Amino acid sequence: MDAFPDEVTVFEVGPRDGLQNQKKTLSVKTRIQFIDKLSAAGFKYIEAGSFVSSEKVPQMANTDQVLTGINRHRNCAYPVLTPNLQGLENALNAGATHIAIFGSASEQFCRKNINCSVAESMVRFRDILQAAKQHQLIVRAYLSCVMGCPYEGEVAANKTASLAEQLLTMGCYEISLGDTIGIGTPGQVTKLLRAVKAVLPVNKIAVHFHDTYGQALANIYTALMSGVAVIDASVAGLGGCPYAPGASGNIATEDIVYMLNGLGITTKIDLNTLLEASYFICRELNCSNQSKVAVARQSL
Amino acid sequence: MDAFPDEVTVFEVGPRDGLQNQKKTLSVKTRIQFIDKLSAAGFKYIEAGSFVSSEKVPQMANTDQVLTGINRHRNCAYPVLTPNLQGLENALNAGATHIAIFGSASEQFCRKNINCSVAESMVRFRDILQAAKQHQLIVRAYLSCVMGCPYEGEVAANKTASLAEQLLTMGCYEISLGDTIGIGTPGQVTKLLRAVKAVLPVNKIAVHFHDTYGQALANIYTALMSGVAVIDASVAGLGGCPYAPGASGNIATEDIVYMLNGLGITTKIDLNTLLEASYFICRELNCSNQSKVAVARQSL
Repeated sequence: MDAFPDEVTVFEVGPRDGLQNQKKTLSVKTRIQFIDKLSAAGFKYIEAGSFVSSEKVPQMANTDQVLTGINRHRNCAYPVLTPNLQGLENALNAGATHIAIFGSASEQFCRKNINCSVAESMVRFRDILQAAKQHQLIVRAYLSCVMGCPYEGEVAANKTASLAEQLLTMGCYEISLGDTIGIGTPGQVTKLLRAVKAVLPVNKIAVHFHDTYGQALANIYTALMSGVAVIDASVAGLGGCPYAPGASGNIATEDIVYMLNGLGITTKIDLNTLLEASYFICRELNCSNQSKVAVARQSL
Repeated sequence: MDAFPDEVTVFEVGPRDGLQNQKKTLSVKTRIQFIDKLSAAGFKYIEAGSFVSSEKVPQMANTDQVLTGINRHRNCAYPVLTPNLQGLENALNAGATHIAIFGSASEQFCRKNINCSVAESMVRFRDILQAAKQHQLIVRAYLSCVMGCPYEGEVAANKTASLAEQLLTMGCYEISLGDTIGIGTPGQVTKLLRAVKAVLPVNKIAVHFHDTYGQALANIYTALMSGVAVIDASVAGLGGCPYAPGASGNIATEDIVYMLNGLGITTKIDLNTLLEASYFICRELNCSNQSKVAVARQSL
């Protein structure tokens, strides 16, 4: 077991992973306001949107306008998800400096989600990474279903480790390991990270743990103990779980920041400013706040 | 850091700590059904009720009828809360074998909750413990506000440790350390348990961590790593927080059992039977289920 990191980067995914699963599609103006409020809280990374089909994901339509409309903070990057070369092109035109690609550690999930095998997806990613390199774009990779798959069940840790290594070799600066259906428990986190750390430096690893079974914070705490220092989270716990409708999805950023503050770990995120963004977006979406910290603070 | 315990006792407090904070007062019959369903899930301890003023806490009225009406399982104890000698007398008449007393590590919380100083409360407890000994009752003690107090803020770990030691010396078989307002984080848990373990064998310590700020499972995981093997929990997360209306209270039993199963730690609790009790009580109370496992399982 390693020492805790002194500083942790909380990677905010609410404006993309959170909003893309909402019933209500927000206006470009509201999405810009949301991101600007998050920027004010001090994040270093805010995932700003996704260049995907606006027919399939209307919530992410006009991400180019969002990206050009936000007030970019100097110390913050605003990555966008680009599933293909067309997405990359559009992201470039909107002034993106950071992009993200979305792979899977599960064969069946990969087929259902991006309609190709895992091996084929790696070929696609290679093309994207080559283009990204030409344009000096910084690329992050997600690997989903690292703790299990809604279609095929168990996913081997060494498969995740091997894919993570390939993505790093291709040029991704960081691999975010996703427990997409939130089924993992702390012992599994330790085993998975042991396998991934055998092939990847720990500072290349991020964790993206969902809270579907209430385990996310314990799992994240375990990841911190393994030396991981980048944690994905979604303000107000926005997102839900497409594989268990009504269940929880992303861990709430506020609850992680609260824990990190308690542990004396630096995040440079101001919790009160973050809570303002949280209350704002829940009002706009007319949804209940999934952050326990946000609810507790509001009720005091 | 100790090794994980091989076996953990999950101490179910739903029928007392959970129900006492509900708007709806259940019938004796429903409370009996609830406890019988929990017994079927395999618990070794189910807190069955409280011998307090039925004017102040109508939800706990007729606990004597509950205690005599339940189907007592041979391997399960059904402790009841007895704040004073009158309560102990009533508990005895209803056939109680296990009782619990409720103290506080915070001076101001003690005054507001039981209207005396901490020192005075210890004198009262001594009287209760003497009477309990005469009748061979087994006594558990709660210590509330061990991570902080809604009235006085910080509570010193060595104060908690000293009170825990006194309660053990008086004859309590176990001390349950309560984060009554759910504000603690894992680093604080480690520090607190270090202080308490300096004066108490770890097998005399239980933890009763609330989830008001979403930290409970990470805190419980930390307690497990410190060797604590008795965890209080409330099915469906029943309970709420009287100090932050609308906020979360008790950690849901299901979410703990799920984590312990994942860690390969024996509990002897059947999760599916537990979920039946969970869905039953939420229907009876007409309340939303606070267990993420229960919600996820229901939505699949």
